[in-house]
Amino acid sequence: MGETAFVPGHVTAFFSVHRRAGPLRTGSRGAGLTLTDGVVVTVEPAAQPAVTLNGEPVEPGPVSSVLEALAVDVRVDAETPLPVGAGFGVSGGMALGTALAANAAADLARSENELVRVAHRAEVEAGTGLGDVVAQARGGLPIRLEPGAPPHGTLDGIPAVATVEYTTFGELDTNAVISGQTDALSAAGDAALDRLRAEPTLPTLFAAARDFAREAGLLTPRVEDAIEAVQAAGGEACMAMLGETVLALDGGLSAADYDASPSRVHPAGASLRMD
Amino acid sequence: MGETAFVPGHVTAFFSVHRRAGPLRTGSRGAGLTLTDGVVVTVEPAAQPAVTLNGEPVEPGPVSSVLEALAVDVRVDAETPLPVGAGFGVSGGMALGTALAANAAADLARSENELVRVAHRAEVEAGTGLGDVVAQARGGLPIRLEPGAPPHGTLDGIPAVATVEYTTFGELDTNAVISGQTDALSAAGDAALDRLRAEPTLPTLFAAARDFAREAGLLTPRVEDAIEAVQAAGGEACMAMLGETVLALDGGLSAADYDASPSRVHPAGASLRMD
Repeated sequence: MGETAFVPGHVTAFFSVHRRAGPLRTGSRGAGLTLTDGVVVTVEPAAQPAVTLNGEPVEPGPVSSVLEALAVDVRVDAETPLPVGAGFGVSGGMALGTALAANAAADLARSENELVRVAHRAEVEAGTGLGDVVAQARGGLPIRLEPGAPPHGTLDGIPAVATVEYTTFGELDTNAVISGQTDALSAAGDAALDRLRAEPTLPTLFAAARDFAREAGLLTPRVEDAIEAVQAAGGEACMAMLGETVLALDGGLSAADYDASPSRVHPAGASLRMD
Repeated sequence: MGETAFVPGHVTAFFSVHRRAGPLRTGSRGAGLTLTDGVVVTVEPAAQPAVTLNGEPVEPGPVSSVLEALAVDVRVDAETPLPVGAGFGVSGGMALGTALAANAAADLARSENELVRVAHRAEVEAGTGLGDVVAQARGGLPIRLEPGAPPHGTLDGIPAVATVEYTTFGELDTNAVISGQTDALSAAGDAALDRLRAEPTLPTLFAAARDFAREAGLLTPRVEDAIEAVQAAGGEACMAMLGETVLALDGGLSAADYDASPSRVHPAGASLRMD
């Protein structure tokens, strides 16, 4: 029987990289926003495994590690309105959605934490992400206090609701950034986290994210221009890690004359869909 | 400015009591279901504090501890379709909803974990609950692995979605049960938890809950009759801790000719409501 899971999108506002013994302890600290625009993953038993995204065959990437870890033969069809490779957690969403839907389709009787561990490990080993999966499993506005999957990683959250807008100018290669020299980036990320923990509010999240992007050297001219334009129009905006993407509160990008997609902070973590 | 929070209802299926050093480490292990029927809490600044539930003044109970801890002068108006005192977590919902809404109304800049700690402490100190608040903050089908508020308490979840029905024959006094001799109850609760952790599925949750209610000596004749009637009609049912309440999967109570209220497992934890 086919089963479907929904995983919210996740935009990281800032992060630090923590490589520790094993993929379950490895991950990122940081904070971000989960979005009601997300990834819908349907899993069906199939003799011939296949993975599609928006109807097109794709490299299975971390999805194949999830299927191997769960020892299931299935096809995986993912649908998302989100830009791919642009900092919205589509890769983590596919991994986590596959784990949730495959567990239900094959009656594997794994717990939520076990499925998060499987998806987090797949992402870390593939180099496609360090913190999206645990954030997407939680929903809301996750603060990643300690890196890794449960029981190692720990989370808090900003108690807020918000509508947002986003626009993407292009992709950035997550693997190229997180597999390189990350000391300066991580120092900026840890400073941003200290600041947010002292005042866990939306304005502080955006301000800390802007300083992080600058200090980590990740801003591109187009992103910088858009953030400045939103702020000049009285709004709040930041860069999405890792993509050439700008996220703004409310209608901030439209007010600055950018074409933007509207979304909302998603109140829930990833879950199965009711039939 | 007034602010409103929604907290899902929570039915505990089984539990064990763990009294440790301080209210933040004290709590219960166990598992249960959060419900889309919940508590809506509105907080407004007011010189004269007041607490109402469904329009009637009520004893403030743990709500007053929450307001003291946050040092705010507000009125708190709660609305719920759930029976009160019957095992649906209305008390925990009022405490947690007050914390979330007061934080927003008074710009207190507390994190979600901090607000959960404030509400959990208030419930434990008032003797009105040991595990509802942390479960209601999480949503879904929470498994309480370790007792207490963050960072002490830890949670997992059953990855499932479900529609349910409930009916209530009367109240049970939570404080009278949890403040008494709880050794046998806790042994039964820990055995139920071991069983659920080995197979975290909905059928195992209900089976473990039924054995727990019997072993802990909490079943009443009316509850026992209703559970047996649901099972005889091919359904799954269990008792809600702590109330003279029966919860069934899908339309199980209606199929056994009981008048019952429909609800669903709530996918999200407590959160502010968008204006």
